[in-house]
Amino acid sequence: MANVIFPVLLLLASSLLPLASPADFCVADLYGPTSPAGFSCKKESAVSSGDFVFSGLANAGSTANLIKAAVTPAFVAQFHALNGLGISAARLDIAPGGVVPLHTHPAASELLIVIEGTILAGFISSANKPYTATLKKGDVMVFPQGLLHYQANGGGVTAVAIATFSAPSPGLQITDFALFANNLPTPLIQKVTFLDAPEIQKLKKVLGGSG
Amino acid sequence: MANVIFPVLLLLASSLLPLASPADFCVADLYGPTSPAGFSCKKESAVSSGDFVFSGLANAGSTANLIKAAVTPAFVAQFHALNGLGISAARLDIAPGGVVPLHTHPAASELLIVIEGTILAGFISSANKPYTATLKKGDVMVFPQGLLHYQANGGGVTAVAIATFSAPSPGLQITDFALFANNLPTPLIQKVTFLDAPEIQKLKKVLGGSG
Amino acid sequence: MANVIFPVLLLLASSLLPLASPADFCVADLYGPTSPAGFSCKKESAVSSGDFVFSGLANAGSTANLIKAAVTPAFVAQFHALNGLGISAARLDIAPGGVVPLHTHPAASELLIVIEGTILAGFISSANKPYTATLKKGDVMVFPQGLLHYQANGGGVTAVAIATFSAPSPGLQITDFALFANNLPTPLIQKVTFLDAPEIQKLKKVLGGSG
Amino acid sequence: MANVIFPVLLLLASSLLPLASPADFCVADLYGPTSPAGFSCKKESAVSSGDFVFSGLANAGSTANLIKAAVTPAFVAQFHALNGLGISAARLDIAPGGVVPLHTHPAASELLIVIEGTILAGFISSANKPYTATLKKGDVMVFPQGLLHYQANGGGVTAVAIATFSAPSPGLQITDFALFANNLPTPLIQKVTFLDAPEIQKLKKVLGGSG
Amino acid sequence: MANVIFPVLLLLASSLLPLASPADFCVADLYGPTSPAGFSCKKESAVSSGDFVFSGLANAGSTANLIKAAVTPAFVAQFHALNGLGISAARLDIAPGGVVPLHTHPAASELLIVIEGTILAGFISSANKPYTATLKKGDVMVFPQGLLHYQANGGGVTAVAIATFSAPSPGLQITDFALFANNLPTPLIQKVTFLDAPEIQKLKKVLGGSG
Amino acid sequence: MANVIFPVLLLLASSLLPLASPADFCVADLYGPTSPAGFSCKKESAVSSGDFVFSGLANAGSTANLIKAAVTPAFVAQFHALNGLGISAARLDIAPGGVVPLHTHPAASELLIVIEGTILAGFISSANKPYTATLKKGDVMVFPQGLLHYQANGGGVTAVAIATFSAPSPGLQITDFALFANNLPTPLIQKVTFLDAPEIQKLKKVLGGSG
Repeated sequence: MANVIFPVLLLLASSLLPLASPADFCVADLYGPTSPAGFSCKKESAVSSGDFVFSGLANAGSTANLIKAAVTPAFVAQFHALNGLGISAARLDIAPGGVVPLHTHPAASELLIVIEGTILAGFISSANKPYTATLKKGDVMVFPQGLLHYQANGGGVTAVAIATFSAPSPGLQITDFALFANNLPTPLIQKVTFLDAPEIQKLKKVLGGSG
Repeated sequence: MANVIFPVLLLLASSLLPLASPADFCVADLYGPTSPAGFSCKKESAVSSGDFVFSGLANAGSTANLIKAAVTPAFVAQFHALNGLGISAARLDIAPGGVVPLHTHPAASELLIVIEGTILAGFISSANKPYTATLKKGDVMVFPQGLLHYQANGGGVTAVAIATFSAPSPGLQITDFALFANNLPTPLIQKVTFLDAPEIQKLKKVLGGSG
Repeated sequence: MANVIFPVLLLLASSLLPLASPADFCVADLYGPTSPAGFSCKKESAVSSGDFVFSGLANAGSTANLIKAAVTPAFVAQFHALNGLGISAARLDIAPGGVVPLHTHPAASELLIVIEGTILAGFISSANKPYTATLKKGDVMVFPQGLLHYQANGGGVTAVAIATFSAPSPGLQITDFALFANNLPTPLIQKVTFLDAPEIQKLKKVLGGSG
Repeated sequence: MANVIFPVLLLLASSLLPLASPADFCVADLYGPTSPAGFSCKKESAVSSGDFVFSGLANAGSTANLIKAAVTPAFVAQFHALNGLGISAARLDIAPGGVVPLHTHPAASELLIVIEGTILAGFISSANKPYTATLKKGDVMVFPQGLLHYQANGGGVTAVAIATFSAPSPGLQITDFALFANNLPTPLIQKVTFLDAPEIQKLKKVLGGSG
Repeated sequence: MANVIFPVLLLLASSLLPLASPADFCVADLYGPTSPAGFSCKKESAVSSGDFVFSGLANAGSTANLIKAAVTPAFVAQFHALNGLGISAARLDIAPGGVVPLHTHPAASELLIVIEGTILAGFISSANKPYTATLKKGDVMVFPQGLLHYQANGGGVTAVAIATFSAPSPGLQITDFALFANNLPTPLIQKVTFLDAPEIQKLKKVLGGSG
Repeated sequence: MANVIFPVLLLLASSLLPLASPADFCVADLYGPTSPAGFSCKKESAVSSGDFVFSGLANAGSTANLIKAAVTPAFVAQFHALNGLGISAARLDIAPGGVVPLHTHPAASELLIVIEGTILAGFISSANKPYTATLKKGDVMVFPQGLLHYQANGGGVTAVAIATFSAPSPGLQITDFALFANNLPTPLIQKVTFLDAPEIQKLKKVLGGSG
């Protein structure tokens, strides 16, 4: 009986194979054209198990810096298999006294899971209401899409967390960098933020901005 | 203290820069392949401020024609930065007695804002119920996706309006053009519309159709 | 022959009428439950032409205030017919010297159309690059979803613009309000923005914040 | 060993059961509120196998009418289990000489499968180009969302087809009904279609319209 | 009066034509890059009526095999016009005693329409509850996205059905093929299914698997 | 100057507050109606910081069971703030020799992050190709939506992982439970899986099924 059976199913299966349908997955080919849907797909014949695994979050980022924090992304640009799958992640290492400054993700909601230590976190709604919490190991917090939020170490040891996102490329806009790490003219920043010129110029110096 | 700080954030930011993620924007490259998601993206390094500005709606279109109206589109084909952003616009100029004939947008809802003059507008629901209004300067009307609608001048001066759409490429199907500006055979049109042959042939002659 | 015909079509049409399908439109019933898809639908039998027209943008908002600007929304909360239709609008009046301060729309891209005057506008990308422009009457500019942007008067007369959005409820987060118009503690704001305490406390006083 | 095992999985399964998650299905409860996402869900405990089966397409609709055709819908309003599942269907019976007149589905693409007989079908693109075909038994044709299309019997025997749609509630706008089966004033119809008044009034009489 | 009129509309129409907007349709070009949104679009100038018709479901597949069944797909890989349109179909021929074994469609819900004969069908929910039915000619059954389901002949004659799907590329994972038609090691299959090794090895032999 | 300023912005902000727009978030109200978009929203006035934090993943689930594994969900049914935000999570504890048996998530892709220990994981594509990996602490693996996959302990110590999902309610269908933990008749299971009756009945006994 053995191996002469199921010809129809084999036929069916094989009729679906020759052309890589994007239904199952679409591992990013970073050298093809991009579109509003993301990156082009690598040919299915070139995809192997290794494409679906990413080891870049295994080690702590260095927190030997002023903010005493490190963010290590596993977005589609780093982990190509995420293309089109609606999800991504990042690792946060925050030393005592460290902070991930106020920022937004324009294209995704964030789910944060504390792995080690304590994190003070919060977001601010469109209604200007802050929602803040002290998160211990094992706690999970969600930050709705596009809203300003922050994370800071809340204890005496380095905190580690996994941030996951509802998009393969969530975007990241750190407010201070958007304002002070480029050449936006100081009078313009004054006008749109009401901050004083000396404060702006001090932060521009710190963050490498000009103007 | 100055400019040696924030190396981690700078590292983070720079690690996200080399590969243009489509999260922020995807200015259309009209020479690349298209997909159901729209046009390919121009390389981020080639994008400048000018890409996000479109001046084509500044001037009135000519209404010196039979319908005494002009429609000037700012769809993604004209304004490339709209690619993937879910929105587009058009300018309507309708002289006294003018009309934008019955039409649909297969891929978008329309929000119309009257800038000058008076406009008579309406749409017809799937339940065959007309919803009509006389719109004055400053009035806004919404036309749900895919439904037949029209706009006509309702006063003694040229009316100007901005139509905005919930898609970068809303599509536009003018019923009269679909029926009478091509080579659909007259007997077929008779069969599917119950119009009389002389009426069909008269409109074919006017609109450039044959058959 | 007259009115005894088309019984099948009449039957078809009537078989689709009794239950208001949400395919055509779903005018918001603000007193029903809300969901991630928006507001509940008003019964179709209670919907009339007037539901699809909004006159709230006809008049200029008062700019007799410190920012010399007014924003008048036509979001789904004001214009109920927008519910589920993927689009909304607002009117901007900006007197000479006026400004709409730095802000984001977490849930929509914005398409701005200048109706009168000159507007200086800009947004900053996730890559911290500013894209700025001087917009004259008739110019259109697009601001991709979730990114920081601003509008300011760029001339000697009041500027008027229509902002349209790719969602019925785009959200609005004014950075200064998010930071200084609530009870976020000053030391926390210092930590997540690197601003100095006196600057924070000055702006809290101006914007009505505490802590 | 038997039935004391898998307590964790049982616990997991049971922890997910008490609250009917809408992930699997959401059979429409026609008496609850509707939203842009469709109808409310029937409680999962009240759902049975019968909810997923619809027998209303088994019998031919009567074609003893002027258009010699019948359309029998299996949309979400008739087949409640389709709610939220992105698909629906209808049965077409078209006697010799019969026609389903020019129409659109504002909210769905259509895939037509001919079960018996021959059908002449076509659609017209936004570029006013007709795409037409003679479909035999077993042929499939697709009509892109929102575009004008028609189906007519192309042979000497009654044709039967199944139309399927990419939405649970595709909408249906028959052009003649939208124009001539309600109280839209004749002069307005003239203005927006360029049809002559006598033609309009003749069709209004046939289709039950007034005005 | 004739053919010199409507220059504005002609201008409008022609201004939209040169660049094939993906709003109307996007017939798959199987030789271009793919993306999470599907295949690239064939140039609109190369698209003709024939692209929208597929005749591959007209003939019965051969049921002269062990499962006494044939599945003939009209997915986007076979019927290129379906690209981006959210719908597809397949033909099922099931001889007496035949079966389409337990399977899922990871990317679509399925709507099954029985054309000839009797089919026993069922699906199992996430809550492990089976929903089963005996379907006669004309009956329709819906299988929610991603859930295990099956179809079997329920009578003495060959059954024919049309399965339609809420995506152009629904995917197809036949549980037995996923487990036994590849080189997954027997001990691993044992571990993740609790099946006995002899049973696994027997089915591997039948289905062509190794290991 | 102080606190009399910004009346317009205050007016704007307050004009958006009275009606809770679902743009920012929609914390699930489990007692309201559900829809295909998820649960109803809790009133914004009743939402507090605590709604955005979930502590249920802090403690290991008990692995003192036959599969030596525990799955602890933080889906929208447990963590109500996830409603409409496109993301969820679960904690996996897998003791040495333990396994999360073959299963699918019909409504989401999964991103798995190993926190402690070693995990053997894999999924099988629609093309019946297995993609498997040995994951160490810090490794991340992605499982595309709807495909069969498994996780097993790959070392001598209990493994802990966080699974995150691209939907608030990913669904969970464990193949063995779907087949053997309910009353599907043994002959039917035989027919659709080709398993032998004794094997089926053995597993039904183990998993609590009948028939």
